[in-house]
Amino acid sequence: MLPFYDVIVVGGGHAGCEAAAAAANLGSKTLLITMDMGKYAQMSCNPAIGGIAKGQIVREIDALGGYTGIITDRTSIQFRMLNRSKGPAMWSPRAQSDRMRFSEEWRNELEKIENLDLWQDAVIHLLLEDGVVKGVKTKIGVEFKSKTVVLTNGTFLNGLMHIGRAQMEGGRIGESASYFISDQLAEAGFVTGRLKTGTPVRIDGRTIDFSKLTEQEGDKEHYKFSYLPYEKSELTQRSCWITYTNEEVHKTLEVGFEDSPMYNGTIKGSGPRYCPSIESKIVTFAEKLQHQLFLEPEGETTVEYYLNGFSSSLPWDVQYKAMQLIPGLENAKIFRPGYAIEYDYFDPTQLYHTLETKMISNLFFAGQINGTTGYEEAAAQGLMAGINAHQNAHDLGDFVLNRDEAYIGVLVDDLVTKGVDEPYRMFTSRAEYRILLRQDDADSRLTPKGFELGLAKQERMDLLQEKLKFRDEIVEFVSNFSIKPQYINELLEAKNTSPLKQGVKLKDVISRPQISIFDVIEPVVPFQKFLKNIPQDRYEEIVQSAEILIKYSGYIEREKQMADKFKRLENINIEDKFDYESIHTISTEARQKLTKIKPQTIGQASRISGVSPADINVLLIMLGR
Amino acid sequence: MLPFYDVIVVGGGHAGCEAAAAAANLGSKTLLITMDMGKYAQMSCNPAIGGIAKGQIVREIDALGGYTGIITDRTSIQFRMLNRSKGPAMWSPRAQSDRMRFSEEWRNELEKIENLDLWQDAVIHLLLEDGVVKGVKTKIGVEFKSKTVVLTNGTFLNGLMHIGRAQMEGGRIGESASYFISDQLAEAGFVTGRLKTGTPVRIDGRTIDFSKLTEQEGDKEHYKFSYLPYEKSELTQRSCWITYTNEEVHKTLEVGFEDSPMYNGTIKGSGPRYCPSIESKIVTFAEKLQHQLFLEPEGETTVEYYLNGFSSSLPWDVQYKAMQLIPGLENAKIFRPGYAIEYDYFDPTQLYHTLETKMISNLFFAGQINGTTGYEEAAAQGLMAGINAHQNAHDLGDFVLNRDEAYIGVLVDDLVTKGVDEPYRMFTSRAEYRILLRQDDADSRLTPKGFELGLAKQERMDLLQEKLKFRDEIVEFVSNFSIKPQYINELLEAKNTSPLKQGVKLKDVISRPQISIFDVIEPVVPFQKFLKNIPQDRYEEIVQSAEILIKYSGYIEREKQMADKFKRLENINIEDKFDYESIHTISTEARQKLTKIKPQTIGQASRISGVSPADINVLLIMLGR
Ligand SMILES: Cc1cc2nc3c(=O)[nH]c(=O)nc-3n(C[C@H](O)[C@H](O)[C@H](O)COP(=O)(O)OP(=O)(O)OC[C@H]3O[C@@H](n4cnc5c(N)ncnc54)[C@H](O)[C@@H]3O)c2cc1C
Ligand SMILES: Cc1cc2nc3c(=O)[nH]c(=O)nc-3n(C[C@H](O)[C@H](O)[C@H](O)COP(=O)(O)OP(=O)(O)OC[C@H]3O[C@@H](n4cnc5c(N)ncnc54)[C@H](O)[C@@H]3O)c2cc1C
Repeated sequence: MLPFYDVIVVGGGHAGCEAAAAAANLGSKTLLITMDMGKYAQMSCNPAIGGIAKGQIVREIDALGGYTGIITDRTSIQFRMLNRSKGPAMWSPRAQSDRMRFSEEWRNELEKIENLDLWQDAVIHLLLEDGVVKGVKTKIGVEFKSKTVVLTNGTFLNGLMHIGRAQMEGGRIGESASYFISDQLAEAGFVTGRLKTGTPVRIDGRTIDFSKLTEQEGDKEHYKFSYLPYEKSELTQRSCWITYTNEEVHKTLEVGFEDSPMYNGTIKGSGPRYCPSIESKIVTFAEKLQHQLFLEPEGETTVEYYLNGFSSSLPWDVQYKAMQLIPGLENAKIFRPGYAIEYDYFDPTQLYHTLETKMISNLFFAGQINGTTGYEEAAAQGLMAGINAHQNAHDLGDFVLNRDEAYIGVLVDDLVTKGVDEPYRMFTSRAEYRILLRQDDADSRLTPKGFELGLAKQERMDLLQEKLKFRDEIVEFVSNFSIKPQYINELLEAKNTSPLKQGVKLKDVISRPQISIFDVIEPVVPFQKFLKNIPQDRYEEIVQSAEILIKYSGYIEREKQMADKFKRLENINIEDKFDYESIHTISTEARQKLTKIKPQTIGQASRISGVSPADINVLLIMLGR
Repeated sequence: MLPFYDVIVVGGGHAGCEAAAAAANLGSKTLLITMDMGKYAQMSCNPAIGGIAKGQIVREIDALGGYTGIITDRTSIQFRMLNRSKGPAMWSPRAQSDRMRFSEEWRNELEKIENLDLWQDAVIHLLLEDGVVKGVKTKIGVEFKSKTVVLTNGTFLNGLMHIGRAQMEGGRIGESASYFISDQLAEAGFVTGRLKTGTPVRIDGRTIDFSKLTEQEGDKEHYKFSYLPYEKSELTQRSCWITYTNEEVHKTLEVGFEDSPMYNGTIKGSGPRYCPSIESKIVTFAEKLQHQLFLEPEGETTVEYYLNGFSSSLPWDVQYKAMQLIPGLENAKIFRPGYAIEYDYFDPTQLYHTLETKMISNLFFAGQINGTTGYEEAAAQGLMAGINAHQNAHDLGDFVLNRDEAYIGVLVDDLVTKGVDEPYRMFTSRAEYRILLRQDDADSRLTPKGFELGLAKQERMDLLQEKLKFRDEIVEFVSNFSIKPQYINELLEAKNTSPLKQGVKLKDVISRPQISIFDVIEPVVPFQKFLKNIPQDRYEEIVQSAEILIKYSGYIEREKQMADKFKRLENINIEDKFDYESIHTISTEARQKLTKIKPQTIGQASRISGVSPADINVLLIMLGR
């Protein structure tokens, strides 16, 4: 009676939605099962997408043909390009989104995807047979059969919430937890652990004194995530507001520490070091007398604000008292207090780079259950797992991105190679080849791959080719065009850079750090005329991509060479080539780690913490290299 | 640290939202606590508001200054006036609403109400002191103090869901149940019981064959619920679709009966007789070979449809198989199967007409927990409880509506006087004075009362007065204006009613059943000219209200007299006047019932089932009447 599916995705969070959409769009008969169809891709915590390194991930998802960028663009109520004062490798787009619209827009898109069936229910059991997954069983008793299953349960596996000494079972406030699956998998031999994350109070905006806060508006030029030029928000744009904690706030919070589940030992899982609770911050940075906080609007029309930076699992009254000592919040009322949640995750070194589990074939894990934190990290894994589940179901090749190709490549490789001991989030510093992984060129890096898969459509390729064509023409123009001092020196002096003595190529002027390509358009009339050819709706995007190529070509080249050099190691396959236990010339730790992680290449082996260059040398020698 | 509230409302369903809004708008410092702020006034079952008798209730809520009508108008995707072929006492407005927008719009409105604080949490305990409620305690450990508390927990109290033999705890699919409160109250002496209700499958509209279904469009003229002329929907209007079950469907369903929690004894609570499950229908009406079903869209853009009439708690595969035997649904896919839910309710005879409990002062109950079913019934009780909690908190008088004033009056009086033994829903037949309780004149009946309370604003009174003024002018005009045969006989013949022999008052023509007031406008030019004075945006509303008065004045007068006669009994107060146990001349049943219900008037006593006219006579004699 029920169809046999190629891919079943369990969980409709950020990971699950991208996974289901990708598999179905690639042509797999796909089923997405989630506990509440009213909460697809719910933003459990802050109402924002992107930010440093995370923004790049969203651009990559979009370039491959995923949805997170599009949905964010349509529902954003503020957009900012972070780090604009730094080099373009550091530029990171970030948007505030309307929380409810975001989820609704996802639902609208899912409902439009052919091949995708939707089902509201909780999965409580995996159908396993001889180490192969065969489908799932739900709480209401349905057995759905499939070739592959993607698990994306987020924070729901045996979820337990804490506010001071109060504990509540659930996957998020008001929602049930998910039981039985992690127990079943632990029994089957999977290594599981507990992690925790937290969220701050939500405030009634009617009770905030904004006159005491610093306003932070969005960018005037409307940047966006999607490379599709027509995706954009119709919502009224809103400001965020900045305030600070102070010593009084810290003292008041400390009073609650003995009732804090984090400090009295109730919470066993470790929390995200880089997204810490306010109590962790005042302990870790005891010398800091204040911490910056952001009040972020929860939607276009609601009066609810999110107090970013004030995540806490202290007793509600401690949170409340401390909050009222923050400038602007003296009379603020809370809609919902902050809380922490502990949940099960699976050690991600139990996965291949495809996110398939090593122990059970055709079973994939993606999102928070792999020990990550963040919507973007979850969505990226979902996309990759969805693609690979489709490839697997149709006996097609693995789809893996390298560390020099995408932050997504870094993310997956870090997870499966190094594992996690606290919730993993992406940073630019995790990438060796940062200058290659920019937000402006995710399309050049990934759209051809997405297109080859069949996920990115012809339209995306056409847009990319148009962009590259014009970009290259600009680069060629400025490389050949000589500019005379009299035309440009006024500008150079105004910008505090030394005037020209003789004519040089326009490219050399643009390469100067003080000068932007947009500065030279006015004085250099032939360039101005030339740029009239650029499609007007993508003008800024294209001119900027040319500028980045011009200004950073040296760095880009250098990183490319490094990556190539390294790739040679990456190409030395060592899967099943060694019995590490019997290699006595490597360190004990290396022996254990290599046995556990079973790296597929020398490159991967070299990134395992505890495996030293000397150990790698031994392996290379054994391989006769 | 926390404010002391006048009114705390527990639960943000239809009852709770109206209660909180009313109390706060009247000036009470009010707190609304609900488990999920994303689900205010969630429509748990069909995405529709109004219908027979229920539509009248919504008009009454609006006339008093409540919100359900306004929210429905803003979010409706179809509007129909039911029973238009019958007399205007039977006309009942009904709308399909976008389920998610409905909840969002409620949230927007709640956030705009001064004096209203919002809190997301679950109440687990009432603070009681010497038979008086003093506040509530929540799951995360907050104690909120107040003068009054309104409980509106809906289907959440010890909620248990059933699909075939599968059982799940919860208040609605995906949501936690509410524990401890009903146990606490049972311990305090309250009589509680179990009731059940159910909901049908939700279907993927992409898999429906609409060519086999009958389309049902909305009314072309856009009727609406609110008396405020500017409230209206901006959403695209959508059709419903009609189909039928058949013998094959019934046979297939019957196969599941042994696994049905309704028939194998698992479900103990009784269900709504008038909103039965499909399995009840095929048992109760065994001779009927088909039942009509409606496919109702769940929102403006979603592909999800609600299969109205197919509510079921049979095993999901039985529902699925049977559904696929229904014309148009041969290949239909389900998003979510139907289910039943059992929950605790409180015998409503434990309440005064104010909805305050007799046992615990300042504690009010409203909505589904009083044994009713339906959004409208819940909202109406919420409004009344919210008003009375405010009145109570400020030592103001009770606000009670009589049976000849409002369906809301009938509803409350039925509940507190007769109690329930199955989920109570409103019908026109429950009202003795149906012709007085029309949907067109809820404003004349109730807006002055709402205005006096302070809930209906000046604007509503002005609108009402304008309407009454023009209505009365129309009635006066047609009562005085004589029409000659030559002007009207053509129309009369065309409408198959006997032509005039001599001039008569225009009123007499309009009184004929075959003739509508709108018919005579064209032929009677002076009338036409006269009507030019009527405000154009309310033209139809006003002319229609005049017509109803003209056509039905005889009936209206008669009912008014009956009501007045009865009111004399209603005015004989007998509260605390009798020790029924000692009156041996009344029947044993009357003795027991009167002792239990403690009627406040002879009128109320006479409506208690088991109390005969003879018993009433005894009481009257004892009173010396
Ligand atoms: C309290 C809290 C605080 C957080 N704080 C931060 C933060 O500060 N910074 C940050 O970056 N991230 C934070 N996060 C994490 C962020 O929400 C997640 O990283 C992200 O949502 C993960 O996406 P996901 O798709 O993996 O899982 P989720 O978004 O959790 O989605 C999981 C989905 O799976 C469904 N599901 C679960 N089990 C089942 C089942 N058995 N059957 C069917 N459906 C199932 C659920 O209903 C849900 O829809 C926080 C999360 C929470 C809950
Ligand atoms: C499965 C199902 C089928 C139904 N079928 C029909 C039908 O066919 N026809 C019909 O007319 N009606 C039907 N109904 C009933 C209809 O949904 C209710 O009549 C109506 O919603 C009642 O409104 P309410 O405000 O009383 O309660 P609800 O709408 O149930 O709202 C209760 C609210 O209180 C909150 N709450 C509960 N306990 C607590 C607590 N302890 N602390 C804080 N918040 C709390 C909940 O979160 C919820 O928001 C059905 C309901 C369900 C669940």
